[in-house]
Amino acid sequence: MLTDRDYMELALNLARTAKGKTNPNPVVGAVIVKDGVIVGTGIHRKAGEAHAEVHAFHMAGEHAKGATLYVTLEPCSHYGKTPPCANLVKESGVSRVVVATLDPNPLVAGKGVDIIRKAGIEVEVGLLENEARKLNERFIHNMLTNRPFVISKFAMTLDGKIATHTGHSKWISGEAARLEVHKLRNEVDAILVGIGTVLKDNPLLTTRLPNQKGKNPIRVILDSHLQIPMDANVLNDEAETIIVTTTGADPIKIAELKKKNVHFIYCSKNQKGICLDEMLEQLYKHGITDVLVEGGGEINASFIRAGLVNKYIIYIAPKILGGRHSITPVAGDDVDNMNLAAKVEIDSFDKVGEDLRIIAYPKLGDQHDIH
Amino acid sequence: MLTDRDYMELALNLARTAKGKTNPNPVVGAVIVKDGVIVGTGIHRKAGEAHAEVHAFHMAGEHAKGATLYVTLEPCSHYGKTPPCANLVKESGVSRVVVATLDPNPLVAGKGVDIIRKAGIEVEVGLLENEARKLNERFIHNMLTNRPFVISKFAMTLDGKIATHTGHSKWISGEAARLEVHKLRNEVDAILVGIGTVLKDNPLLTTRLPNQKGKNPIRVILDSHLQIPMDANVLNDEAETIIVTTTGADPIKIAELKKKNVHFIYCSKNQKGICLDEMLEQLYKHGITDVLVEGGGEINASFIRAGLVNKYIIYIAPKILGGRHSITPVAGDDVDNMNLAAKVEIDSFDKVGEDLRIIAYPKLGDQHDIH
Repeated sequence: MLTDRDYMELALNLARTAKGKTNPNPVVGAVIVKDGVIVGTGIHRKAGEAHAEVHAFHMAGEHAKGATLYVTLEPCSHYGKTPPCANLVKESGVSRVVVATLDPNPLVAGKGVDIIRKAGIEVEVGLLENEARKLNERFIHNMLTNRPFVISKFAMTLDGKIATHTGHSKWISGEAARLEVHKLRNEVDAILVGIGTVLKDNPLLTTRLPNQKGKNPIRVILDSHLQIPMDANVLNDEAETIIVTTTGADPIKIAELKKKNVHFIYCSKNQKGICLDEMLEQLYKHGITDVLVEGGGEINASFIRAGLVNKYIIYIAPKILGGRHSITPVAGDDVDNMNLAAKVEIDSFDKVGEDLRIIAYPKLGDQHDIH
Repeated sequence: MLTDRDYMELALNLARTAKGKTNPNPVVGAVIVKDGVIVGTGIHRKAGEAHAEVHAFHMAGEHAKGATLYVTLEPCSHYGKTPPCANLVKESGVSRVVVATLDPNPLVAGKGVDIIRKAGIEVEVGLLENEARKLNERFIHNMLTNRPFVISKFAMTLDGKIATHTGHSKWISGEAARLEVHKLRNEVDAILVGIGTVLKDNPLLTTRLPNQKGKNPIRVILDSHLQIPMDANVLNDEAETIIVTTTGADPIKIAELKKKNVHFIYCSKNQKGICLDEMLEQLYKHGITDVLVEGGGEINASFIRAGLVNKYIIYIAPKILGGRHSITPVAGDDVDNMNLAAKVEIDSFDKVGEDLRIIAYPKLGDQHDIH
């Protein structure tokens, strides 16, 4: 005998399969159950396509009458690219609806549920809510801030080094962790590095998965003085590239780079370099809903100290490098007191192959911006 | 119905309670079971006192006849401070003996078991052997190398920093992790730091446990140029202190320090400073069976690169410090290639309060000495 929780877990697992494919939309899963039998399942697969509820009701057909709908996110109440799902639910004949979490946008949250309740259908909200909110953390952040969700990812040794003093770093992580990073690139809209990383490592920043190409994220390069070499790997045509620079950048080089299909975002400068707040707002307007920040140490520090990191994914390799001048994952300006460190909460820690993966979030209430 | 494994687990748990109290002896637990009833239990509590088997047989009395003895380490075959336990087992009337692991000293391993087998008693060896060997990892290392077991412990932030550029580090770890470190100090014979740490932090290096004093480890200070200030905290009379220096050290200062009950070990120098191999041999002769190395980064690097660390205990705090000149846990000379990092195997990773604790061992076959 399966319980409400089991069905909602199934709906969440269905939703999870679409992660990274629905941007800018959330991922949503729906399950319809009648007399202990699953009569409908649905996933929102891609922005512009049918919502999860539509697929589930289509599958359920007449069996929806008197059934229970489990859905990971409140059915929508507005006319977007598709008609409101709340109306569909109202007309479906279901007698009960279980919703994991309300629409994150405070201006619309609860309106979908209201429509359904007013039609005399029983509605419960909040089953596995934490899981549902975590699954759509990117979407929720977008709705609340109109900015991309920023993930800071780095891989270091057990003694906190990301490279030797010469910059050599291949490979810190084992195969399993490196594969995970490519899966992550496949899920995000954009990947961001500083010009220092381009000059030093000349990376491709593409998604390389075995047996499949994967989706390449948009490459975002922070380059306030437009130092990028015209033959840098990030300028190849495998993926879109955006250079973030300042209004003072050389217009001739900009014109040349535009010929290579490079897009530009111009930001003002502040004491710390490019104004990251301004950049994030522009990236969001450009349709970028999440950004994977892959460093180096100065870029990582800029984001962390500006309080702009929403999630940390840290891989720790089972090796100890040492070295007085080895490179560490977060640099930036020095502070005197340990109390000025940015506080995080460790969400999970797991073995990935031979490495450890730590997922952490900024601690609520911590003042990350220590300047 | 309990199984052989259950009884051996009980014996191991009994042994575990004596950890740190039996040096230089191993910890040993024994359980005697007759017809499904535990008739005897014993722990080796302290060097010079009765072995675990003696206590267990004393408790069992006549019930030992026809019973099974579970013991975490092979009963001894030699006359030390107490008569050989193998003879006691032979005469006890038990019909079966289950041993977790043989005596680690290859010259004596199996001799205790031989005595018992020759008396016609059934003997099985190897139940929970890995656990038993880990429990006595210190003793096993002592027996095989005639050197103390070296534990490298450090606490760092999630971005690999142990202090700010000014040396400020109070506190990286949370209360639970700091308490664990004091429990660890309570268990080891000696704690070792470099003179740099004494000059910078002026630590006490004593065991501070709530509601009990705890046992203070011997403080070992590496100080090749005898820079220690006469009023350093480590020279107080709360614990014994050994200064490791070179034969060229100022004899007047040595004489003054000896008046403060400081002991001296003189070692030769090599390219890297004090010859650590020589020092470890001398510490072992001094009766020190394990050493907790608490850094700083140069000392940690010296031990790691000389291949002298037997175990790593690393605490990671949920904070990100950043800082171009922040201090990292392992320094030493730089190497060019990431492949020259020392490889370790992660044994466990757990939350301790808000921190993470990683326990790791040098990877077998890895050439730690990268020079």
